[in-house]
Amino acid sequence: MIRGEHSSRAVRALEETFALELGSGVIQRVWSESDVSVLAAVGEGMVGTPGVSARLFGALAAAGVNIRAIAQGASERSISAAVPTVDADRALRAAHGGFYLSPQTISLAVIGPGNVGRALLEQIRVAAPRLHASHGLDLRLRLLMGTRRSVGDPLGLDWSSWERAYSETAETASLDTVAPCLRDAPWPHAAVIDLSASDEVADRYAEWLAAGIHVITPNKRAGSGPAERYRAIQHACTTGRALFKCEATVGAGLPIVGTVRDLVHTGDEVDSIECVLSGTLAWLLNGFDGRSPFSELVREARERGFTEPDPRDDLSGMDVARKLVILAREIGAELDLDHVEVRSLVPEAIASVPLEEALARLETMDEPMAAELSKAADSGVLRHVATLSRDGRAEVGLRALSATHAFAHLRGTDNCVQFRTSRYRDNPLVVQGPGAGPDVTAAGVFSDLLRLAAHLGARL
Amino acid sequence: MIRGEHSSRAVRALEETFALELGSGVIQRVWSESDVSVLAAVGEGMVGTPGVSARLFGALAAAGVNIRAIAQGASERSISAAVPTVDADRALRAAHGGFYLSPQTISLAVIGPGNVGRALLEQIRVAAPRLHASHGLDLRLRLLMGTRRSVGDPLGLDWSSWERAYSETAETASLDTVAPCLRDAPWPHAAVIDLSASDEVADRYAEWLAAGIHVITPNKRAGSGPAERYRAIQHACTTGRALFKCEATVGAGLPIVGTVRDLVHTGDEVDSIECVLSGTLAWLLNGFDGRSPFSELVREARERGFTEPDPRDDLSGMDVARKLVILAREIGAELDLDHVEVRSLVPEAIASVPLEEALARLETMDEPMAAELSKAADSGVLRHVATLSRDGRAEVGLRALSATHAFAHLRGTDNCVQFRTSRYRDNPLVVQGPGAGPDVTAAGVFSDLLRLAAHLGARL
Repeated sequence: MIRGEHSSRAVRALEETFALELGSGVIQRVWSESDVSVLAAVGEGMVGTPGVSARLFGALAAAGVNIRAIAQGASERSISAAVPTVDADRALRAAHGGFYLSPQTISLAVIGPGNVGRALLEQIRVAAPRLHASHGLDLRLRLLMGTRRSVGDPLGLDWSSWERAYSETAETASLDTVAPCLRDAPWPHAAVIDLSASDEVADRYAEWLAAGIHVITPNKRAGSGPAERYRAIQHACTTGRALFKCEATVGAGLPIVGTVRDLVHTGDEVDSIECVLSGTLAWLLNGFDGRSPFSELVREARERGFTEPDPRDDLSGMDVARKLVILAREIGAELDLDHVEVRSLVPEAIASVPLEEALARLETMDEPMAAELSKAADSGVLRHVATLSRDGRAEVGLRALSATHAFAHLRGTDNCVQFRTSRYRDNPLVVQGPGAGPDVTAAGVFSDLLRLAAHLGARL
Repeated sequence: MIRGEHSSRAVRALEETFALELGSGVIQRVWSESDVSVLAAVGEGMVGTPGVSARLFGALAAAGVNIRAIAQGASERSISAAVPTVDADRALRAAHGGFYLSPQTISLAVIGPGNVGRALLEQIRVAAPRLHASHGLDLRLRLLMGTRRSVGDPLGLDWSSWERAYSETAETASLDTVAPCLRDAPWPHAAVIDLSASDEVADRYAEWLAAGIHVITPNKRAGSGPAERYRAIQHACTTGRALFKCEATVGAGLPIVGTVRDLVHTGDEVDSIECVLSGTLAWLLNGFDGRSPFSELVREARERGFTEPDPRDDLSGMDVARKLVILAREIGAELDLDHVEVRSLVPEAIASVPLEEALARLETMDEPMAAELSKAADSGVLRHVATLSRDGRAEVGLRALSATHAFAHLRGTDNCVQFRTSRYRDNPLVVQGPGAGPDVTAAGVFSDLLRLAAHLGARL
């Protein structure tokens, strides 16, 4: 390793010294490489200590640093590695991280700082000191991007004051900046957390994953969208080193996607998944006893903030259908959204009219819903259920259930998923609880982030 | 690198050549090291390809191979590393694994091949080809050990015929052989799967973990036993690189321990955990409506194999108390088994008599149980419940619950756990389903094994 300005003189000197060997072809050529830095780990007797060199190279490996040359020989006090100068900072931090001089560091780009984003950043702020001290994990907010503007910090935004920095930023948002921004950070690992509900962001996942950037999201677009895009994401994961995590797409913080993955990976065979996956529809049907018309309950739910601004988005069942497609694909079924048999609760008459008109004419729902309720009363209760069968059949809509069915006893806006499998045949495996809301959605995303950290070597 | 028999001549030759430098102290000394092997990775233009050297050293690092010297320089076609000869096989396999020429390999020692063991080995047999092909994971059964005998194979026992090999083995069992056996295997990673219920095996965990051997178990002894042993296990995990996994200790394959860990790690605060954790007691109380005396139900359960051979082991509530201690420690409470307030269902009169006498006098339970039932009838139903509160209070025993309580609707031998936390305050997060039996217990162990594999770099 010599200074750049001396390189041509050094090459000439070596060519002269080895003229004989070059002439006979024993040495093929002498050349120089530029923009190379030397990383040296120095310590008394370190080379003889099992695992020291392994730990150094393991850390550099995990950070994806390419090593151009290595010198480790007789000296027991040092190991030197030549790395590209552009990677030098990252290599140094990764090496520190490997020896726990400083912990594992993950650089984060958070897209879509709405209610879930606020909840997530607050959860990370509170947990960060403990994760740092006890688990060797250091999370850095490299970039925060909304639909119009973005704010970044090469050292990581402050978890307590990001909101001010974000409100004061003049930088506009562009998804093109996400990968370069994360790549420029001196930290060994990088992840995008997509909290948007946008197809445009989902379109970038495969490209980010292929570049070694992990993706974590509660955004249902990728998991339930076009099969081609989904396959590209899977392909990037199986051929590269980055992970795609989406626990919070179904049931927010409830352990649903992870449970499906465990069942499938351990060789269990899923016979059916029966679920209540809309908190809004659960609340409406838990309360629908025929004493008030259904439209009145819908209006009340909308006023209490339980529905989307346009309640037809809930009543159509499409959001539930998306979640069902995500679960189906997790068990290996090649299901597309348009293969799901969705029976919408929205009458034809108000399905395509403007929102104001639909709200004014909600009463058109009352007669058909009253008929469904009285039909169900013979056997028990009326619920909004999504079902996936082993043969790939997927259905979403109203179902009459017996009063002893687990779904008959749901409370409030609870979600509930029942897995029937080869192992859980007589009685299903059931996961139940609040499946929406900023705090629990953020918690689902945070769990995925910690599972990623464990995969990267954090002690979790 | 020269042959061993030439080493002293080589040292002398170098000493003569560098006599001047040795005299002036520029070179301190010349010496030789024996039992060193060279591992070389060779490929066209490989050094210039980002990540190649990193991948090699990363794989060696994960396998804990110490690198004595490395030569990577101008040649673009090879990287050579000198490793101790005893590690050479393991290093070669790890390097292959790192490049996916052959997959990640984990060497397993399974202790206690009973019903759960049989189920687990069968699940692995069925899943192994898919895990190998799609996820790059290669599981090898290095050692199978019962209480009296053991069988091992340096290449891994056949998943289909281990039972014959085990029945025909003449080797006696000794826990002292487990670690050397796993260390001798040429595979990069090693794990003990303890399927016993033995304290003697649990006593070894800390030592194995400290040696870099991962431990996975449904054995409740470590998690609920002496605090000192538990702390030694935790210490070995936080200071070393091995993991301790125990999902199947509570609720078998149900995602309970993992859910607690997720809640705690993401910074949620657990207010209370309320649970039904004995399938046996759940079955007895689900069926106890006062029409038959309780003792009759106990006799029926025993005949159907739902109870332990001595039903007092279930009725005492101690098994449930152990699970509660495990959950308490997961949320960071320093709880010992004797701090749990356990209200046994076994009357004093038959608590300490021989089994035959206890079975003959089961009717002594009937009057107190009938009294409990009629007391509960006022408010709803009678259930056997374990409760853990934030203030560290832990109780196990009968509870009268309202008919709308989730535990009032349990079926058969189902377990059920309700987590109330800062995020799940109004409605709890609920996990429910069969919590005992060989298949689901094995599945819980298998899930832990796959989570370990993911941590070690398998694409899961």
